Amino acid sequence: MTTELTTVVTPEEFLTHWQGHRSLTRKMFEVFPDDKLFTYSLGGMRTFGEMGNEFLGMALPTVRGMTTLKWEQFEHAKPTTKQALLAEWDAQTAQLDEEFPLIPVGRFSETMKAFGQWEMKGFQLLFYVLENEVHHRGQGYVYLRSLGVEPPAFYDREM
Amino acid sequence: MTTELTTVVTPEEFLTHWQGHRSLTRKMFEVFPDDKLFTYSLGGMRTFGEMGNEFLGMALPTVRGMTTLKWEQFEHAKPTTKQALLAEWDAQTAQLDEEFPLIPVGRFSETMKAFGQWEMKGFQLLFYVLENEVHHRGQGYVYLRSLGVEPPAFYDREM
Repeated sequence: MTTELTTVVTPEEFLTHWQGHRSLTRKMFEVFPDDKLFTYSLGGMRTFGEMGNEFLGMALPTVRGMTTLKWEQFEHAKPTTKQALLAEWDAQTAQLDEEFPLIPVGRFSETMKAFGQWEMKGFQLLFYVLENEVHHRGQGYVYLRSLGVEPPAFYDREM
Repeated sequence: MTTELTTVVTPEEFLTHWQGHRSLTRKMFEVFPDDKLFTYSLGGMRTFGEMGNEFLGMALPTVRGMTTLKWEQFEHAKPTTKQALLAEWDAQTAQLDEEFPLIPVGRFSETMKAFGQWEMKGFQLLFYVLENEVHHRGQGYVYLRSLGVEPPAFYDREM
């Protein structure tokens, strides 16, 4: 058995997969009524716009931390309107494409203490960021449905 | 650069990660009020119990299809009570541990037409099954919150 064959997913495949999800999340922002994105919620939870700001605060800082092993708080814009959120989203999309390939090979299976508190392997960190977005985006689907708005299909990952 | 270093996640790591998620989903079933699991929903969506049956219908059939390249409809129990759902869940948890390692190495990067209709790489199929569960489970969180029930933490993956 060669080591190549024990790979579930390569870094390139993972980045493409991740950006596909980010593209679906972007469609969710787009279809959300402008006046509801930062005001509407259910069950006392956060608005979908606030969740979007959380996604923005996690993705690049995690990639940068994995690259440098320095875990600094990332200062990103904190949009309060749909237009500003989409603009920040697009800027980070381009930055992720540029910076993800800088993660040293081998870092994915290395255990690290991310942001001084979460000790896990590199791939677990990345999965956490991706799955946190999927988790909260699913909640955004309920918000949209309860507003009578048809969300994009879960499998629609075209950029 | 050796091929080993281009791995984001190995099959063993992926299985452990997946089972961690399945464990969280199980906790969601447990904490859901018995009389709401198959009756309550928001926005005209499915109940969380029905979503649970969907998860049961996807996981093992996908692993078996990836192993054999035969895509048969999987006949699983279709529970309508919490106890029956948990029993079926636990049975599949054990089966997944047994059958996942049978997927031939190399299959993750192979393109296949799953169930005669979805053409994608093996890892994409697996990610679809896992992320579909995360997506709908996030919706279950909104159901629970709107019922005034505290859900388990998103990061609680202990078996």
